[in-house]
Amino acid sequence: MSCEERFEAEAAALGHRFDGEIRIGGNYVPVLRDGHHVYVSGQIPRVGDVVVVTGAAGEGATLEMARTAARICVMRALALLRAAAGPLESIKAIPRITVYVQSAPGFTQQSEVADAASDLLYRVLGPAAAHTRTSVGVQQLPKNATVEVDLVVTV
Amino acid sequence: MSCEERFEAEAAALGHRFDGEIRIGGNYVPVLRDGHHVYVSGQIPRVGDVVVVTGAAGEGATLEMARTAARICVMRALALLRAAAGPLESIKAIPRITVYVQSAPGFTQQSEVADAASDLLYRVLGPAAAHTRTSVGVQQLPKNATVEVDLVVTV
Amino acid sequence: MSCEERFEAEAAALGHRFDGEIRIGGNYVPVLRDGHHVYVSGQIPRVGDVVVVTGAAGEGATLEMARTAARICVMRALALLRAAAGPLESIKAIPRITVYVQSAPGFTQQSEVADAASDLLYRVLGPAAAHTRTSVGVQQLPKNATVEVDLVVTV
Repeated sequence: MSCEERFEAEAAALGHRFDGEIRIGGNYVPVLRDGHHVYVSGQIPRVGDVVVVTGAAGEGATLEMARTAARICVMRALALLRAAAGPLESIKAIPRITVYVQSAPGFTQQSEVADAASDLLYRVLGPAAAHTRTSVGVQQLPKNATVEVDLVVTV
Repeated sequence: MSCEERFEAEAAALGHRFDGEIRIGGNYVPVLRDGHHVYVSGQIPRVGDVVVVTGAAGEGATLEMARTAARICVMRALALLRAAAGPLESIKAIPRITVYVQSAPGFTQQSEVADAASDLLYRVLGPAAAHTRTSVGVQQLPKNATVEVDLVVTV
Repeated sequence: MSCEERFEAEAAALGHRFDGEIRIGGNYVPVLRDGHHVYVSGQIPRVGDVVVVTGAAGEGATLEMARTAARICVMRALALLRAAAGPLESIKAIPRITVYVQSAPGFTQQSEVADAASDLLYRVLGPAAAHTRTSVGVQQLPKNATVEVDLVVTV
């Protein structure tokens, strides 16, 4: 299977489509190519106009909901990369991914949330998904999103 | 108008000067040149020795105060870049800006705060201000600052 | 003294060893080489299987405990770099270090925590420790860690 086919399989599993325009708010760009790197702006689990997973993990959102949110963030990032930098096969590595989890005070499973992002990257990209990762628990995220993910890839 | 003139116009609009030494605390450098990139340390809205906007957005600080804070952070970053990397015209792009907003639990307008940073960058730098962005809401920031901004530029 | 000897002196001062395998959880890599850069995943103050400093700074953890946590994070990062990228002498600069401090609502000394990381880097690496820095106070960190540090170095 190609990266593209695996991407579509993930989209189907999530029950969302990521083939239209990926909207962002504000006066910035979703992706920026810089030499052999492409930076992707922080993605929240928005599908169309709706943020589909909101609230703090451990409070309004369960661990599994937060993991779903992380997967949607990564799918958006991949959709943006595909639109801006060509086929997903052109990704060679992912120097950094940062996973921000809106967290209730006692919620300490940020790594388990981020694992959902990491695992999806490997399923779609294979060995080219190798990445360093930082996951932290924050107080809030734009539009009450449960998770936000940004990353930089090497092409 | 040159970038420099637009920078001075923004400083006048904010009612602050950014032409003296920009102080930072601690044992690190404000900017570091790395090939064609210049990294800028996290900037808080400090003018001289005083952090001029403090408290959590949505609690001690209004949205508009947080937006002012974001503008001051960016002006400090630009002043540091000018001092370290030459005229602002040498900036070609901004691969990443991260905007940390000290947020009350229910404050979800981190993007609106970050928009103030983004808009100022475009006003001063024009198309060279193109940037990817991540904005998150954090529990606290150094010296109770309302906003902290870091960025990396391509020169 | 070599970097290596200074590293061992710091380990002895902390009373921990950093010469075994540095474990990370999850499906990602601890370090990733990308041209002349090496990215290090976010490190928490884990020694072996135990996170040795937990809780929010200003609440469950004192400032001094948080500073110790920051030092352990940096030692882990250096140990990973040494294992992956060769002798510590090969580090030329540190474009970015980000220090996340789990913070009680009123704790505003994130810079003082980060100073412990910065000072250790200079003690071990000398002038090659020059770095830009961002320090923020977050709601939670994986496994209730008090501090998390990530960085990217130039080799």
